[in-house]
Amino acid sequence: MTVVKKPFEKHLMLFSGRAYPELADEVATLMGTTIVPMRALSYANSEIYVRFEESVRGCDAFVIQSHCAPVNEWLMEQLIMVDALKRASAKRITVVAPFYPYARQDKKHAGREPISARLVADLFHTAGADRIMSVDLHAAQIQGFFDGPVDHLWALPVLADYIQSKYDTSQMTVVSPDAGRVRLADMWTDRLNAKLAIIHKRRDPDVANTVAVHEVVGEVEGQVCLLVDDMIDTAGTICQAAEALKARGAKAVIAATTHAVLSGPAAQRLNASAFEEVIVTNTLPIATSEPIEKLTVLSISPLIAEAIQQVFTDGSVTSLFNGQS
Amino acid sequence: MTVVKKPFEKHLMLFSGRAYPELADEVATLMGTTIVPMRALSYANSEIYVRFEESVRGCDAFVIQSHCAPVNEWLMEQLIMVDALKRASAKRITVVAPFYPYARQDKKHAGREPISARLVADLFHTAGADRIMSVDLHAAQIQGFFDGPVDHLWALPVLADYIQSKYDTSQMTVVSPDAGRVRLADMWTDRLNAKLAIIHKRRDPDVANTVAVHEVVGEVEGQVCLLVDDMIDTAGTICQAAEALKARGAKAVIAATTHAVLSGPAAQRLNASAFEEVIVTNTLPIATSEPIEKLTVLSISPLIAEAIQQVFTDGSVTSLFNGQS
Amino acid sequence: MTVVKKPFEKHLMLFSGRAYPELADEVATLMGTTIVPMRALSYANSEIYVRFEESVRGCDAFVIQSHCAPVNEWLMEQLIMVDALKRASAKRITVVAPFYPYARQDKKHAGREPISARLVADLFHTAGADRIMSVDLHAAQIQGFFDGPVDHLWALPVLADYIQSKYDTSQMTVVSPDAGRVRLADMWTDRLNAKLAIIHKRRDPDVANTVAVHEVVGEVEGQVCLLVDDMIDTAGTICQAAEALKARGAKAVIAATTHAVLSGPAAQRLNASAFEEVIVTNTLPIATSEPIEKLTVLSISPLIAEAIQQVFTDGSVTSLFNGQS
Amino acid sequence: MTVVKKPFEKHLMLFSGRAYPELADEVATLMGTTIVPMRALSYANSEIYVRFEESVRGCDAFVIQSHCAPVNEWLMEQLIMVDALKRASAKRITVVAPFYPYARQDKKHAGREPISARLVADLFHTAGADRIMSVDLHAAQIQGFFDGPVDHLWALPVLADYIQSKYDTSQMTVVSPDAGRVRLADMWTDRLNAKLAIIHKRRDPDVANTVAVHEVVGEVEGQVCLLVDDMIDTAGTICQAAEALKARGAKAVIAATTHAVLSGPAAQRLNASAFEEVIVTNTLPIATSEPIEKLTVLSISPLIAEAIQQVFTDGSVTSLFNGQS
Amino acid sequence: MTVVKKPFEKHLMLFSGRAYPELADEVATLMGTTIVPMRALSYANSEIYVRFEESVRGCDAFVIQSHCAPVNEWLMEQLIMVDALKRASAKRITVVAPFYPYARQDKKHAGREPISARLVADLFHTAGADRIMSVDLHAAQIQGFFDGPVDHLWALPVLADYIQSKYDTSQMTVVSPDAGRVRLADMWTDRLNAKLAIIHKRRDPDVANTVAVHEVVGEVEGQVCLLVDDMIDTAGTICQAAEALKARGAKAVIAATTHAVLSGPAAQRLNASAFEEVIVTNTLPIATSEPIEKLTVLSISPLIAEAIQQVFTDGSVTSLFNGQS
Amino acid sequence: MTVVKKPFEKHLMLFSGRAYPELADEVATLMGTTIVPMRALSYANSEIYVRFEESVRGCDAFVIQSHCAPVNEWLMEQLIMVDALKRASAKRITVVAPFYPYARQDKKHAGREPISARLVADLFHTAGADRIMSVDLHAAQIQGFFDGPVDHLWALPVLADYIQSKYDTSQMTVVSPDAGRVRLADMWTDRLNAKLAIIHKRRDPDVANTVAVHEVVGEVEGQVCLLVDDMIDTAGTICQAAEALKARGAKAVIAATTHAVLSGPAAQRLNASAFEEVIVTNTLPIATSEPIEKLTVLSISPLIAEAIQQVFTDGSVTSLFNGQS
Repeated sequence: MTVVKKPFEKHLMLFSGRAYPELADEVATLMGTTIVPMRALSYANSEIYVRFEESVRGCDAFVIQSHCAPVNEWLMEQLIMVDALKRASAKRITVVAPFYPYARQDKKHAGREPISARLVADLFHTAGADRIMSVDLHAAQIQGFFDGPVDHLWALPVLADYIQSKYDTSQMTVVSPDAGRVRLADMWTDRLNAKLAIIHKRRDPDVANTVAVHEVVGEVEGQVCLLVDDMIDTAGTICQAAEALKARGAKAVIAATTHAVLSGPAAQRLNASAFEEVIVTNTLPIATSEPIEKLTVLSISPLIAEAIQQVFTDGSVTSLFNGQS
Repeated sequence: MTVVKKPFEKHLMLFSGRAYPELADEVATLMGTTIVPMRALSYANSEIYVRFEESVRGCDAFVIQSHCAPVNEWLMEQLIMVDALKRASAKRITVVAPFYPYARQDKKHAGREPISARLVADLFHTAGADRIMSVDLHAAQIQGFFDGPVDHLWALPVLADYIQSKYDTSQMTVVSPDAGRVRLADMWTDRLNAKLAIIHKRRDPDVANTVAVHEVVGEVEGQVCLLVDDMIDTAGTICQAAEALKARGAKAVIAATTHAVLSGPAAQRLNASAFEEVIVTNTLPIATSEPIEKLTVLSISPLIAEAIQQVFTDGSVTSLFNGQS
Repeated sequence: MTVVKKPFEKHLMLFSGRAYPELADEVATLMGTTIVPMRALSYANSEIYVRFEESVRGCDAFVIQSHCAPVNEWLMEQLIMVDALKRASAKRITVVAPFYPYARQDKKHAGREPISARLVADLFHTAGADRIMSVDLHAAQIQGFFDGPVDHLWALPVLADYIQSKYDTSQMTVVSPDAGRVRLADMWTDRLNAKLAIIHKRRDPDVANTVAVHEVVGEVEGQVCLLVDDMIDTAGTICQAAEALKARGAKAVIAATTHAVLSGPAAQRLNASAFEEVIVTNTLPIATSEPIEKLTVLSISPLIAEAIQQVFTDGSVTSLFNGQS
Repeated sequence: MTVVKKPFEKHLMLFSGRAYPELADEVATLMGTTIVPMRALSYANSEIYVRFEESVRGCDAFVIQSHCAPVNEWLMEQLIMVDALKRASAKRITVVAPFYPYARQDKKHAGREPISARLVADLFHTAGADRIMSVDLHAAQIQGFFDGPVDHLWALPVLADYIQSKYDTSQMTVVSPDAGRVRLADMWTDRLNAKLAIIHKRRDPDVANTVAVHEVVGEVEGQVCLLVDDMIDTAGTICQAAEALKARGAKAVIAATTHAVLSGPAAQRLNASAFEEVIVTNTLPIATSEPIEKLTVLSISPLIAEAIQQVFTDGSVTSLFNGQS
Repeated sequence: MTVVKKPFEKHLMLFSGRAYPELADEVATLMGTTIVPMRALSYANSEIYVRFEESVRGCDAFVIQSHCAPVNEWLMEQLIMVDALKRASAKRITVVAPFYPYARQDKKHAGREPISARLVADLFHTAGADRIMSVDLHAAQIQGFFDGPVDHLWALPVLADYIQSKYDTSQMTVVSPDAGRVRLADMWTDRLNAKLAIIHKRRDPDVANTVAVHEVVGEVEGQVCLLVDDMIDTAGTICQAAEALKARGAKAVIAATTHAVLSGPAAQRLNASAFEEVIVTNTLPIATSEPIEKLTVLSISPLIAEAIQQVFTDGSVTSLFNGQS
Repeated sequence: MTVVKKPFEKHLMLFSGRAYPELADEVATLMGTTIVPMRALSYANSEIYVRFEESVRGCDAFVIQSHCAPVNEWLMEQLIMVDALKRASAKRITVVAPFYPYARQDKKHAGREPISARLVADLFHTAGADRIMSVDLHAAQIQGFFDGPVDHLWALPVLADYIQSKYDTSQMTVVSPDAGRVRLADMWTDRLNAKLAIIHKRRDPDVANTVAVHEVVGEVEGQVCLLVDDMIDTAGTICQAAEALKARGAKAVIAATTHAVLSGPAAQRLNASAFEEVIVTNTLPIATSEPIEKLTVLSISPLIAEAIQQVFTDGSVTSLFNGQS
């Protein structure tokens, strides 16, 4: 009798950092559970301490954190949480980062730059993460920065359902605010069966790094223009784009974007902008210096809850998006 | 007397796979050296054998291979060469892959797909490569797939110099053949101070995966249209784009592209196409079933030779591109 | 209520590359299942694409591929399949390579050579393989090239059962075709209680790399000689051995070998040879330029199916071979 | 039907090296099982061979070894056992090292020294260990040397229960034998609500590396002094400490220590010492050149058995110590 | 002619994060060089961007950062700098962290805690650091958390020289403020040939986690008491210790400590304390809410500059400390 | 002025474990240097301590150890030395193991066995070794167990030169003592232009694991028989082989073998054997219980010294063996 046997049950536990606990709570509620209690504090010298208040041994752990400012704080907190889970014998650890930090530094734009988005993937791996779940990566290639499964969720269906329920899309033109988002705009045109336009920044050949004109490529006159982007940060580019579209005769301009970073002058700019409505999700908490009336916030929680459920039960995540990844 | 001392000299050696030895020879000649002799053969059962015919101990090795068809052969050959160099005590090994294999599979387009471009980076690393040098990666994010230095060379200056010397660019519009290359087209407009247009594929909402129309977004009438892309493979997309541009009144259509994959029906299509001239580089050997008269091939060797020289002498590679990477 | 529970069932899935789907189908049928459907194609430029058409999340995956020519194609395809499984959250991935590729390059025979068999083990590991299953490795040490479990199957019982059922082994001498296979021949003599002989290649001391004589060491006159080897590639060595044995008075010569590589002139040579019968297994597809009448092909599928079953159910693989490995 | 399913049961197996099989047997008996039979021998040239005599595929393996002298033998044996388990497809491997080898070399005391305790953690990891379980690490930081879970057990409750049942602790002073164990003594004072003292070695400033005086810092006159340490090796320090305490008027001196290394002159020294009783556990076998009458050995087996049970059933190990680690 | 040769010169470059550039400048000046110019900024959303403004290819890089608050910012900045250096082909990268971040979380004090100090070592390694240099690690075992060379510098000689030049040490008692620092105090007694005392915190057995008394163990009456510690954070413990010493008749109380964290109420507490003088170094910038008159700050720059010089020139760092590490 | 430059000289240092310092001293003398002084001792509890007494920073380190009994001691000592060198910033570390430990456990002979030879390679790598140098590996495939350069030296030329100078090889038959060494015997026949024979152990089919007869395959009557093997351990096999050869009419029997393990009854057996002369090298110290008169010991030091010199100066090691490896 050299073997001791025991039937095996998988068990899932949800964890949340301190950046945006409301989102994690929403997810937990939708899954019929609660977030595992954690003692977390920042010492006087700003170092972070965490401890889980229940045994986590053998669990399938999902560690939810929103990477809003101060992003380095919340990233380190999540790394420390993952380290603690690893050392406490969690069976599998999935980092849930609805807004992937440092996603824009996904390549070297110039010599002697870092590739911080790869660094972040490596830091997660080093701390002990087995998998990553994220929404609308700035570049889909970031999936390849992690040596393991990445569940890439899409907010497009959430945003598009809302727009289709509220707007007549037959007179709509989807507009990319710059050259880098045309592929995203292209996907929207497929979804809405709409036309495509693009804002082209012509640089002044006589003055370095200066944009001379925001040229509109494509027809927008009399159209409802839908500007699409993965995130709104300081809102400078997108507000200039809205101006340019109005100047070219757009009937109305709205925006649909997944990540509401909304840092610095974003609130002021949006309030003063030509936009009729700006639709975002709550992958990040909305915490601007002043309220933004034209802002509509859709919840991303149902999507995340469903994806975690699929991962836990060995279902399919891409089935939520018709097989796309 | 417990120490034996010896002054130290770095030494560089160039190696070449069998895919396209002419390119490696060009590079070697430009650097005033020759390729290290290698015994390489494919056995009857198709396994590859290599052996270097000189000591490589301590050298700074650059292993040049062009990844044309059959790409898996040439990739495995290069991996085997790197393994042999590692075991023979080369000091540092740089993989020179002018055309990065599997670059288009740089993300999961659908669930349960591989990310082969990351896999390739990992295979190089596993075999023993310390660094990678490549020209015009399909996505710049591929730099982040490798955990080490990647020297990313740009063919744009080579191609643009030629175009500027031959064409009047004041009446030129740079055209992206699809939504995915607009960023590249944007860089060309900066360089040439030209206008931008884009071919937008509208899918038929009633028939899955069917392109209904190749819509031209932007003004092209009376313009010389320059279609830009990183590679021409079967030439289907780009030839349809040229048709669409002519149909919209373009005065002439030319193309500038780095990698001349030219597989399958590419030669026939290009010969039958609306193009006036198609300008490429020799990152890959030109070996089509029939000659293509309108094809102009510029040599990439001077760029590679200069970059290797900078790497060997601890100079700057990005200085060759005004600091861009 | 911070825990969500779920009973757990292991599930096995079989995958097959395109090299020899018939073998994988045989295995699946024996196990009462079918191969998971996969979309696999080679693009015009020879790059390979794969995608699984069912969710594979959490499965115990066995990826079967036969490494016949073009071996680098099939190796890369299998690596890409493993990468896709890893990124799609397969729980455990076993590479089933009935004929281990590059097994003969298991050491450096000369300076500045690769050790390709180790490289292959590392490539499998890098792609994401957790385990390897293979039949009759060229050198058993290859097990040690992989940092994880290797299930090493033996075809000897399959081959020996056939021989014992058909031949009188009391007058049989087991012959090693060269110095490198004597250990294998030794195992056969144990199994058959037979005598041992060996073909010794005497090199000409005056001419480099030239075999002067195929000397028979041991007694073979009037005996039925059984030449044993792990593989027949171009069949040169083994046919010369058969000649030498006949010249020394052997009554009959037969061969038993696991892997029927049969490349280049193998079919012609075997048809013209002194052999009475050549017995092989179907670890590789038999696809020679001309039929070989004296060839007997035994199926390896029952062995592989049984081994996979043992691995999946935490049974013992070595119990299939009386504990030997 | 591409999936084969099977309900899953975890199964635990216990393994023991040859250093101290009695301890492992005690643990197994307490858990209602037996040690897995193993063939183990040391060849004439001193190389070690092991083989498990039952299938271990898929098991949750606990490999128990006591690292007494010759410690390098037993360490290598345990590494070899772990390697064999890894290659035989054990699902998870926990090294149980009640006395962590080389724990005292946990830092560089001088330049060009090794950090052998980290090396040992890395060797376990390399061989294939997923987790480590140990009792009273010389420095708790050693937990951080291993990149995975470390279950750190404390003998203090076992030792303290005994002392409290036998001695009146109201007149007791806990004494640290040197500056390095004050933290441990501090924990004992908390447990016993006792006073603290420390033996301070004053070095002679005129003679290098020479201890001039064993100065007692704190009040010990008329007290029962309890010297605490994690281990007794040659017993030199602790016996000198006992002398110094008696000289300063201690009523009685006893010692409590986890690991009874007891090497070299330890038995003679303890027998000749001022101690009334020396209490240890059996993390190591007691095998001294002469018997030590004042030695009391408490069994550590119940603690180890309980901890293994918690690990196997995904319970909590720190709950055994009121959450401390 | 298959080899290109080039004589080789090592070259050193110094880099500095933005936490405390004055320290790095001091070091550079002492070494006769300047810090490499770097573009560094924090975006509106708090993500950090860096770029070096000179080629760093092949250099021996030393990246200096002081980990004061906000420590996670400065840690991430340093990681990003290291990543950029790695990708820009620096030959060797040494992280210089005079105050090692998260050093106090060097073990699990309770179950389900992280070991953040090990995590930090792994993050440095993952980003690309080859070596670490630090001053007075909280626990010397942290050296073992990094899998590579750690140069551990000691501030004790700097601090002791100052004290010996200013105070009469014949009437001095070295005091450890708690049980964890006795080993450090012990080293000071050796250096000053002084007596030892220790502050023992007796917990109240009736109230959890409550210190009842700060008991002084050892003789301090009429002595000049030197409290030693590796760092002063909020100054609570050390100020209470000073009170207790005065209450026990100490003639005067001074403190010597390496790292002046001085967070939260530290300045107020020190100003209101019984201390005559508090001596620290500038491993961290001194930036308190109010000035501290009794604070003496000694520069650590000469030590760091000398150590970097030794590392660069393959000299000995421990020779700076009589061989201790 | 952001760069500090310094000309660079490589420097070599030799280190020796305590197993067989005489061999290391011979090597050092031949290279015109001395072994770096090291403090090394085994504590009373059998743990090993080492410290180098000179700075080793930046050196090209060669760590020589002979793996005689007690082999686990000497292996651990070498691992600890390598760890200390790594942490002391040696630039490159080569393990010199003239007799590779555990070489015979190079594969699983039965299920649930370790592959200790691979484990040893991994342990060296983990400790910090960059390269391995060894003489006559039991199986050449062991080169592939290490993920880096392995310099494989051959004693055959040393042994053969001696034999050719002393014996008439025209009447010589090279004999393999069992099936596993025929490849080695084959190489000797090439070198000496001699005949081949082999001792075949016929097992008794009725009694498990019993050798019934030592059958001589090949002609030996009247010949001088040269038995060749890589090592003599207990000398059982080879002495039985010598008996069998004499019984079959051999004129004389001599042996040539690289590694003189000579453990257990080896000395007695050889003294009582039919051998005329037994020729070995000193890869291991000769320390038998009784002297062996017929033993001739050739020095391996010149070969090792020459190989180290080639490695240090980036020469070729295989050139010492006509390119063979």
